[in-house]
Amino acid sequence: MSAAAGNAKSSLLVVGSVGLDTVETRAGKRADVLGGAASYFSVAASFLAPVRLTAVVGTDFPAEHTKLLEEHKVDLAGLERVPGRTFRWSGVYAKDFSTRTTLDTQLNVFQDFQPKLPPAWTSSEYVFLANIDPVLQLSVLEQAQQSKFVACDTMNFWIGGKRDALLKLLQRVDMLLLNDEEARELSGEANLPAAARAIRKLGPSAVVIKRGDAGALLFHEGGVFAAPAFPIENVVDPTGAGDSFGGGFMGWLAHEGDTSPATIRTAMIMGSVLASFSVEDFSLDRFKRLDLAQIRERFQAFSDLVHFEKIKL
Amino acid sequence: MSAAAGNAKSSLLVVGSVGLDTVETRAGKRADVLGGAASYFSVAASFLAPVRLTAVVGTDFPAEHTKLLEEHKVDLAGLERVPGRTFRWSGVYAKDFSTRTTLDTQLNVFQDFQPKLPPAWTSSEYVFLANIDPVLQLSVLEQAQQSKFVACDTMNFWIGGKRDALLKLLQRVDMLLLNDEEARELSGEANLPAAARAIRKLGPSAVVIKRGDAGALLFHEGGVFAAPAFPIENVVDPTGAGDSFGGGFMGWLAHEGDTSPATIRTAMIMGSVLASFSVEDFSLDRFKRLDLAQIRERFQAFSDLVHFEKIKL
Repeated sequence: MSAAAGNAKSSLLVVGSVGLDTVETRAGKRADVLGGAASYFSVAASFLAPVRLTAVVGTDFPAEHTKLLEEHKVDLAGLERVPGRTFRWSGVYAKDFSTRTTLDTQLNVFQDFQPKLPPAWTSSEYVFLANIDPVLQLSVLEQAQQSKFVACDTMNFWIGGKRDALLKLLQRVDMLLLNDEEARELSGEANLPAAARAIRKLGPSAVVIKRGDAGALLFHEGGVFAAPAFPIENVVDPTGAGDSFGGGFMGWLAHEGDTSPATIRTAMIMGSVLASFSVEDFSLDRFKRLDLAQIRERFQAFSDLVHFEKIKL
Repeated sequence: MSAAAGNAKSSLLVVGSVGLDTVETRAGKRADVLGGAASYFSVAASFLAPVRLTAVVGTDFPAEHTKLLEEHKVDLAGLERVPGRTFRWSGVYAKDFSTRTTLDTQLNVFQDFQPKLPPAWTSSEYVFLANIDPVLQLSVLEQAQQSKFVACDTMNFWIGGKRDALLKLLQRVDMLLLNDEEARELSGEANLPAAARAIRKLGPSAVVIKRGDAGALLFHEGGVFAAPAFPIENVVDPTGAGDSFGGGFMGWLAHEGDTSPATIRTAMIMGSVLASFSVEDFSLDRFKRLDLAQIRERFQAFSDLVHFEKIKL
């Protein structure tokens, strides 16, 4: 465990997908590498706080992936192994990364996933519900009754297909993360500040709108905050950038044990830091050679990226 | 003249279009209102520095528009009035402002425009070449031999159609402003930091990539700087936002009489401030009721928008 994670004031629970990805980008192709939102989230967050992972894999899930999670001290007491094949996703990115095409999705053992928290985890204070069926997200909340701060991710598939369950969930979460198109679809508002205002009325006191290489916007009680994306010249694989953002964000809140507006702003930058590393290699490979010194250095680079002097006018 | 413009250390020359726009957005429709890149630029910059405007209009150009420019102390010694009709543009924006469609463009007297600087203006230190034929932009540079800092704007029409003239121009300018698609087209690079690096090799030591509501990126000797766009809920008319950005940017440089990396960063924010006001009403109407106190206040709002604390990790 990193020194920072060892010093964390709270622990962090995540539920979501762990899977095997086959990805092709201009930088190359990788088959059956570690993927899934909860994988990216867990390892990104692990640099800042101890992580408890709730997910399901099949009997074909490679030992090396389990080992990677263990090396990052991710607590796997909630990782079920069941007969069958692991969730698989396959996709290809346009040469300029402007679009991605899903070639194949196999739910496999994920199809019948019913998240069950180990008894000791029901008191988790920081909870992240990665992008899965809102019915399952809600079932996790019903088990984690002592949560202090709950954030959830979602996607257009649920916004369109399970809207009622999603709306019920939103009444019980503190923060929703979603991308700009999803924010527009959920709210019916094209303008992002208007969309965020509408979404906050549905329950979450904070809304984070992720915009890829245009950064992320936070709307919350502390006003509006704009986090830039780090300009990366050699993007290798954008898969999991949003989930790594979530990991850095929630990892920082759990590390600080605090959800004040100032801490949430810093968490936005920490999320952006982890996301910026994530895209520099395939799968979770960049995290394998990441350390706290590099995280500190990039956090400072974000400060420099947006720094300007006060004026006299 | 505003107190700030009166205190400016240098004056600012702009050459570009002045025209009459007919615009329709979700907020309404306006016919034959004041438009053109140089109009937006001049009035935006006028809050910060005295502006010298070089452009051409026809005999039909309404006196009220001339009066607006005069009220902002824009020096019109270089504004030719020639027989014929003024340049006209007409367009309609999608309800969500994601696209705009040009319905009509009439060059009219702009067709034969040959910019001629009044003799006293050839010593102008700060020069902005708004988006016109690069051959004309070059002819202005040949007249302004004592320039200290030259910035130019361009568009895909010239990148594709007058590439040789544009490349010749770029060897002589200090800064190029363009949008993300134009940067990709000019450089052949999809990745924006890579595109900026390629463009800097063509001549300009600084490149500003404008990304609309995703803000603007500056690549220069002082590294990379990311300026956010101000989240505006009630966008009325985005026409001229980029030109207003240019006006605020160059106005600040001329006000300070300085082009250090720190001043250029501040200029990026001042450009963003003026752009954010510009979109709040049709044509240049928002500038009619703008004052320095509001500019100061929004500059501070930009500081708040990106502010986050240092961390211990």
